[in-house]
Amino acid sequence: MSDISKKSLEFHYDLRGKIEIKSRVKVDSSEALALAYTPGVAEACKEIQKNPQKCWELTRRWNTVAVVTDGSAILGLGDIGPEAGMPVMEGKCVLFKEFGDVDAIPLCIRSKDVDTIVNTISLMAGSFGGINLEDIAAPRCFEIEKKLKEKCDILVFHDDQHGTAVVVAAALLNAIKVTGKKMGEVKIVINGAGAAGCAIGQLLVDMGFGNVVLCDINGIICEGDEKLNPGQEEMSHITNINHEKGTLADAMKNADVFIGVSRAGLVSKDMVASMNNGIVFAMANPVPEIMPEDSKAAGAAVVGSGRSDFPNQINNVLVFPGIFRGALDVRATDINFAMKEAAAYAIAGLVSEEELSPEYVIPKAFDPRVKDAVAKATAEAAKRTGVARI
Amino acid sequence: MSDISKKSLEFHYDLRGKIEIKSRVKVDSSEALALAYTPGVAEACKEIQKNPQKCWELTRRWNTVAVVTDGSAILGLGDIGPEAGMPVMEGKCVLFKEFGDVDAIPLCIRSKDVDTIVNTISLMAGSFGGINLEDIAAPRCFEIEKKLKEKCDILVFHDDQHGTAVVVAAALLNAIKVTGKKMGEVKIVINGAGAAGCAIGQLLVDMGFGNVVLCDINGIICEGDEKLNPGQEEMSHITNINHEKGTLADAMKNADVFIGVSRAGLVSKDMVASMNNGIVFAMANPVPEIMPEDSKAAGAAVVGSGRSDFPNQINNVLVFPGIFRGALDVRATDINFAMKEAAAYAIAGLVSEEELSPEYVIPKAFDPRVKDAVAKATAEAAKRTGVARI
Repeated sequence: MSDISKKSLEFHYDLRGKIEIKSRVKVDSSEALALAYTPGVAEACKEIQKNPQKCWELTRRWNTVAVVTDGSAILGLGDIGPEAGMPVMEGKCVLFKEFGDVDAIPLCIRSKDVDTIVNTISLMAGSFGGINLEDIAAPRCFEIEKKLKEKCDILVFHDDQHGTAVVVAAALLNAIKVTGKKMGEVKIVINGAGAAGCAIGQLLVDMGFGNVVLCDINGIICEGDEKLNPGQEEMSHITNINHEKGTLADAMKNADVFIGVSRAGLVSKDMVASMNNGIVFAMANPVPEIMPEDSKAAGAAVVGSGRSDFPNQINNVLVFPGIFRGALDVRATDINFAMKEAAAYAIAGLVSEEELSPEYVIPKAFDPRVKDAVAKATAEAAKRTGVARI
Repeated sequence: MSDISKKSLEFHYDLRGKIEIKSRVKVDSSEALALAYTPGVAEACKEIQKNPQKCWELTRRWNTVAVVTDGSAILGLGDIGPEAGMPVMEGKCVLFKEFGDVDAIPLCIRSKDVDTIVNTISLMAGSFGGINLEDIAAPRCFEIEKKLKEKCDILVFHDDQHGTAVVVAAALLNAIKVTGKKMGEVKIVINGAGAAGCAIGQLLVDMGFGNVVLCDINGIICEGDEKLNPGQEEMSHITNINHEKGTLADAMKNADVFIGVSRAGLVSKDMVASMNNGIVFAMANPVPEIMPEDSKAAGAAVVGSGRSDFPNQINNVLVFPGIFRGALDVRATDINFAMKEAAAYAIAGLVSEEELSPEYVIPKAFDPRVKDAVAKATAEAAKRTGVARI
């Protein structure tokens, strides 16, 4: 067990829970009880009964998000069961509060069935302002998100997909700038065609990035391949415009960008060397597809990873607290493409022209400007695209 | 609108939510992030994967309770819908925290179907240490509670039933003492045969109180009556041992105790005067079945109500925080009869022989000794009856 693992386990045993409930009311007198509870509270109830929209003003719903998992894709650990996923969910709730001032509640669901999960969440949707799906395995996560969006009147966001996609897009916007590449002309290879890989591909295509090629364990994903799951099949129509076939190594030849959301060690120095002045974001955790120093040695122009001990840490924590903050602030019914794109540009925009360098294409995880910049951009995009309710 | 209603509504608009999430971790460095979240958190997950019981030590589950409603019987307002019930649920969560140091999460479910509600809650049971059902209409609440107890490995408690029953039993234990009545010989009339009335009847019978007679809007409930719902039918076999028939007024003649969980003004002075040195707990809220001063004038020996502006306030807040505290402390799988009985005796026992008087049969709502006394008694009873897991 590594040092950090050991320390973290002790920390968890000592703490016995990383979040708790805080009362915003001091109940120390009969009058306080009568105000916060019976009989006074009846008036707030009646107000919501008359106009259900008032629940956004009279309860904490406006700031509350459920962080929901089925425990099927927890970190890189796979399907470890709902309860075993809870330490991650609690950690996520900590980040929601600390980085976005969002009140997030961890919930694990004891089912792997799409419709059961969708029904369970949607039956409780009146308690929350939004749903953050977390660590649910692909391809089930695509269907759950889609069905939930249809069924719920509140926003639904699968962070492993969209949070990752936004932060990658932000880093990429600056990386092409620093290398002088053109958005519409770059060839981008994404390795890993699960939740994160498909969402990154979708967002980059929608934002106008050039030829995106998705790879999975069987190599390049190409339209018409019968082994694709529904999510990949959908992606096959908008990616790999030249209908390439072959291995990951084949795909990377002369590519401008490599984005890894797969596994440790899958990329060699030769593969990086075969790229066109490559941008390499190798984000497998905790050990990337290729270590940053190896990418550098093989001639990569810009290198990023998920790790805090190297430059250019590409971390979702830059995204989800601010994007939810902005969406909740305008009571958005969705986190749509425009909001994600706006969030990506907002993050990228925090790196000034003067600061921009191959070692600094994305703000640090603890940059205090990020939340407000992302929230503002997200809220504005929500208003512009008509999904804001206030 | 009364003064308190007006003030409470303003208070709710100003506050915009009576609870929030508090992070127990400061995330201000890469190391803190690595401990509370990735990569360190993986170790806690793996520990729970190996042994699911570890979730009680590594997450906040041990102290977390879901406060769940379908919005069907909110206060005295009836079926006002799930979202409209949330101000009460949040208020309940405030009381859980302030009086019991329990982390309670408010959840409303958009369904009135028993099996749907049961399934929804049980699918999420891995997130909580207990379920507090709240303001769910009878007779549905009986079935929901019963099915949930069968299906869930965590404790399930419907406070409107059992919290009310325990606090009434506590007050009654002292009221019979101060009037010299004998537990096994008293005749007790309960008006209101919904969630609270049935549960009070059940607990008092189980504790060994004498003849309990339940009444509802049609008068005395008697075995064999075809209009009874399943909960009332069950009660008819253990109450009204003399098979009395007639009105509430008939039932109250020579009765020792009246317990009202019904509606304002249903009891007259004459009815109280017809009792045998009567104990009158008229608990309809906010206006009781008969006002305390009228009961007194009609010759009642002991008078209690749900109100804080008269002596002997009979309020659930004396019960649920402590009973959950005790049950959670020993990781109980149930809140069973022994635990409820023990809680009632613990509350009653806080009024000393010297203090005991017709004006003081139950501790005040803000008596700081109550939580610990109830928690201790509940936990001990749980251990004694084999429902404690630690």
